[in-house]
Amino acid sequence: MSCIKQIEITPIAFRDPPLLNVYGVHEAWALRTIIEIKTEDGNYGLGESYGDEQTISQLRQVAPHLVGMDVFNVNAIRNKIESVVTLPDPNSGLDIAPGTLGATTVPRIFSVFEVACLDLMGKITGRPVCDLLGGKVRNEVAYSAYLFYKFERHGFTEDPWVDTWGEAVTPEQIVAQAKKMIDQYGFQSIKLKAGVFEPEQEIEALEALREAFPNLPLRIDPNGGWTVETTKRLLDKFGNGLLQYLEDPVHGQEAMGQVSAMTDIPLATNMYVIGFFDIPKAIKLDSVQVILSDHHYWGGLKATQELAQLCKTWDIGLSMHSNSHLGISLMAMTHAAAAIDNLTYACDTHYPWQEEEVIVGGKIPFKNGAVVVPDKPGLGVELDRDALAVLAKNYENCGIRARNDVAEMRKYQPDWKGTVPRF
Amino acid sequence: MSCIKQIEITPIAFRDPPLLNVYGVHEAWALRTIIEIKTEDGNYGLGESYGDEQTISQLRQVAPHLVGMDVFNVNAIRNKIESVVTLPDPNSGLDIAPGTLGATTVPRIFSVFEVACLDLMGKITGRPVCDLLGGKVRNEVAYSAYLFYKFERHGFTEDPWVDTWGEAVTPEQIVAQAKKMIDQYGFQSIKLKAGVFEPEQEIEALEALREAFPNLPLRIDPNGGWTVETTKRLLDKFGNGLLQYLEDPVHGQEAMGQVSAMTDIPLATNMYVIGFFDIPKAIKLDSVQVILSDHHYWGGLKATQELAQLCKTWDIGLSMHSNSHLGISLMAMTHAAAAIDNLTYACDTHYPWQEEEVIVGGKIPFKNGAVVVPDKPGLGVELDRDALAVLAKNYENCGIRARNDVAEMRKYQPDWKGTVPRF
Repeated sequence: MSCIKQIEITPIAFRDPPLLNVYGVHEAWALRTIIEIKTEDGNYGLGESYGDEQTISQLRQVAPHLVGMDVFNVNAIRNKIESVVTLPDPNSGLDIAPGTLGATTVPRIFSVFEVACLDLMGKITGRPVCDLLGGKVRNEVAYSAYLFYKFERHGFTEDPWVDTWGEAVTPEQIVAQAKKMIDQYGFQSIKLKAGVFEPEQEIEALEALREAFPNLPLRIDPNGGWTVETTKRLLDKFGNGLLQYLEDPVHGQEAMGQVSAMTDIPLATNMYVIGFFDIPKAIKLDSVQVILSDHHYWGGLKATQELAQLCKTWDIGLSMHSNSHLGISLMAMTHAAAAIDNLTYACDTHYPWQEEEVIVGGKIPFKNGAVVVPDKPGLGVELDRDALAVLAKNYENCGIRARNDVAEMRKYQPDWKGTVPRF
Repeated sequence: MSCIKQIEITPIAFRDPPLLNVYGVHEAWALRTIIEIKTEDGNYGLGESYGDEQTISQLRQVAPHLVGMDVFNVNAIRNKIESVVTLPDPNSGLDIAPGTLGATTVPRIFSVFEVACLDLMGKITGRPVCDLLGGKVRNEVAYSAYLFYKFERHGFTEDPWVDTWGEAVTPEQIVAQAKKMIDQYGFQSIKLKAGVFEPEQEIEALEALREAFPNLPLRIDPNGGWTVETTKRLLDKFGNGLLQYLEDPVHGQEAMGQVSAMTDIPLATNMYVIGFFDIPKAIKLDSVQVILSDHHYWGGLKATQELAQLCKTWDIGLSMHSNSHLGISLMAMTHAAAAIDNLTYACDTHYPWQEEEVIVGGKIPFKNGAVVVPDKPGLGVELDRDALAVLAKNYENCGIRARNDVAEMRKYQPDWKGTVPRF
């Protein structure tokens, strides 16, 4: 037995650029929580998850109940969490970040502990986490260039910080953003966060990307921002292989099913299939051809593998969603993706948009758009406690306690609604 | 890395009583294969599977390709097996033992290596196999009393061996068999293998069992031996809670779906949902409410967990099937069942019907019908090499090379057909 002696839960905040989406705009700080599980035999394991107040309070609520439990028995840890965590209204939370929804409470809270336990199991057995998931089937995990429309800088903050990316509202600026990101990271595929401007303008940006990067697969994600009618009108423009997949064009599984029936372009989602509980309906409606998994709210790395088996069974594609995150989550994603043979699309990541880190050595390097799966025991990253203290102080000072892209946008446009569908 | 140095594949045979089923009768010897994987660091891991000639030749075909591979990387081992194994006609093999079917080749061949690798991983890390599956959620795994109609002794063999169970063809003899088995093992539920006599006679046996054991759940399994019409006629008799579930009453998923639509009694199967490939149809037809998993042909212990998640997602029950087996398989089943929280039915096992063993210490004890999940590293059983040599000699001498209940029954009834549905 390797028993849990202590659990440290540290909310952090790091700078986030003013990235635009259908709901509004990212605030000046993104929130996360870092958890550290220490065992009686002197090891420690790391996990990273959402930093909204509800998640933090749930993590703090369950943590004392886990002290004394064996880190190898994550099944018992999950059952314990299920029995003690307070379940909020399933509809509470933010659609754009399904990990904040009430419906995903148990898998979301369990996930961060499971990752920390896997990190510990790896350290205790001298094995990388991917070996505890059945072993890697690839040596590196590919990520995609995640492009955003954005303002040049946050308009309503005392903070003098300005990101290095500049404004991106025109097709030319989006292509420039892609060039800069691909130069730096080597990504081999491109995703454009959409739902911000009139669809025709966003498709112009896609077409400009196609011209600038004729060999890279493209994806567009309006976060459910279009109506079925609008999407129908646009489908012709997406023909002839412009898109690798179309992510969450419309709002809700029924609308997704209607679009799916109109086109051969695979529809992807991270918004309308957010847990195993959504899958029977998705299969019945044939509403989605690619599920964007996310261990943060699907219930951890093993649950992601179970989702992968399910996708294989129904011949559904599988890729990976992201929210703003740091290196602990990037490594958890990388180990899971390495051990899943049908995770064949490059994964999403917000990682290029973050400058700060909590891990020793700073930001994780990318090569040709991919992260090398580490062979070190556990996740392969160590906690930089000085950096953690700085980011924890940011959290104390930043004043943000739950992500709210809608309220942030109202600072720019007081009559902003932030509802979908928008176009 | 813990690399595979050598793989020993040993076909064995052990005495099997003349157990009756819809296809015919068990032969005098049951066949299995024991595999032993030795690593370069001096450990060994055990697996047990079918002993038919096709399985043995496939195991021998793939084994040399696995030498040098890391036992922790079972994902890579599975991919290697998939790339080198010869795939026979998917319809070849024996319905009653789905693990001999061509359609289950890759998961069947992988499974035995996965179990041996998990045994090794456990020994190397000092952890029981259930810990490598996320940890146990129960300390003991319940099995059911598996009753068979049977002849007193094999009629056409030189072998003087007679089992201790006696004839069982009447309801009274079935009750006596149940009493003897439950006295010895303490089982808390009862399954009757059926499809042997007219259904009404078999239901008389069930009713006699109900009277003798008023508190034990009952199941009946005619192996697809009844028509839909016959089953419809019988459903009334199964009402008022006589059955916990009805296993494979009719032949094929479509017929199962027809029966399912007629009754609230849960239908179970190990014959018509034998791999992930069968599940979409089963869900579409709502043809089964309980899946009887079997790691030997579903692709191992982790695949059984993936199946469990799938069952949870669709609210399908989960239990465990067995064919004639020894203690290595019993321990593999026990570790998997211990780590699956929705495996809530007592599992099937033929174990009481076997007298011989290949593990040190002889037969595994049962307490109140359950096997205690061992805390020892790996599966928790060691190979008795002297016993293995005896059983391997049996295999050499017994003359049987593939199970054939139909041909065996023709020795008693030359015009025996062995086809389903029979009644």
